[in-house]
Amino acid sequence: MERTGLLIILSSPSGAGKSTLARRLMDWDDSLSFSVSATTRSPRPGEVDGQHYHFTSADDFRELVRTDQMLEHAEVFGNLYGSPRAPVEAAMRAGRDTLFDVDWQGGQQIRASALGGHVVSIFVLPPSLPELERRLRTRGQDSDEVIAGRMAKSRGEISHWAEYDYVLVNDDLDRTEADLRAILSAERLRRNRRAGLGNFVKQLMEGDE
Amino acid sequence: MERTGLLIILSSPSGAGKSTLARRLMDWDDSLSFSVSATTRSPRPGEVDGQHYHFTSADDFRELVRTDQMLEHAEVFGNLYGSPRAPVEAAMRAGRDTLFDVDWQGGQQIRASALGGHVVSIFVLPPSLPELERRLRTRGQDSDEVIAGRMAKSRGEISHWAEYDYVLVNDDLDRTEADLRAILSAERLRRNRRAGLGNFVKQLMEGDE
Repeated sequence: MERTGLLIILSSPSGAGKSTLARRLMDWDDSLSFSVSATTRSPRPGEVDGQHYHFTSADDFRELVRTDQMLEHAEVFGNLYGSPRAPVEAAMRAGRDTLFDVDWQGGQQIRASALGGHVVSIFVLPPSLPELERRLRTRGQDSDEVIAGRMAKSRGEISHWAEYDYVLVNDDLDRTEADLRAILSAERLRRNRRAGLGNFVKQLMEGDE
Repeated sequence: MERTGLLIILSSPSGAGKSTLARRLMDWDDSLSFSVSATTRSPRPGEVDGQHYHFTSADDFRELVRTDQMLEHAEVFGNLYGSPRAPVEAAMRAGRDTLFDVDWQGGQQIRASALGGHVVSIFVLPPSLPELERRLRTRGQDSDEVIAGRMAKSRGEISHWAEYDYVLVNDDLDRTEADLRAILSAERLRRNRRAGLGNFVKQLMEGDE
């Protein structure tokens, strides 16, 4: 049945499982389209342009913002990050949902945009902050100082939990994945999301006469 | 996590599969409590008082309405039907959801009541009206006249589809059951349904200090 694609916003502090959950959702539903962010930061080893990020110069990024081609953008640790508008609008028109892996600033801006009525926002909480720190440390990539910075950012991120439609506590990845699937399935069934329903009921009633 | 029970309203025209779906949901989740309606009509063969209906005299029914012990009530085909309030409020306090098998009039009244903020309403459409009539006929219980009356009532019921939060087209019982499960699972995860979340986040943040 005809419908407009949704904007699924997934936010959480770093280390709460968001990237794994996003990947699992994409594997589950191949109609889901992932919003690849643009950024002015340099690629890390292994990062592919156009897949992990659209790597962009600061001048190009500002021009995209100036010409309203960014759905949202924000500066984080001195770098610019943003969600390009065009692929999201194309997906919506095709009835495909777009998944956003953005922080609370990105979530706020997308909700406040003209597309806000199509947003479903989900916040993933860690079971505990020591557990979150443990997960950051077992990545084994970062110094104590970097981890302290990430934990401070995490506390700031968590403080915005009450702005989201759904809040999940990720103490079990499989369970949280099932919860995310249920949310997507249910939101697609909401009457006001399904542009084709009016016509369906009209044909249902007329088909009987 | 602490939460207040939801009021799940399931409406559909007769023959669209509502009773089967309600039974399947009750089998799936034994924490779900079913709202047994009170009625002034006579029991049919096989109907058990307190299980299928609370069979009530017209005088007793009117007294229950007068003393505000009915969450909703309506007259259908000359008989009174209503949903007793006490078991619903007890289930809510215990964090258990209640399933209502009511028509659009019942749904409207429950949504408009003081408990309206806890309502999740779902309308189940048949795939077609000839299919609906076929299902009514294969029950083999009713005369042409009764079936014509039911079909007229069905068209009236369907005309209220746009008042519901979710609308499902039941062209496959298993699929529709899965949709209902997803809706219940998702609604329980909505931030504003989960009274315990504020405390959880508070402890999460304090536990780290």
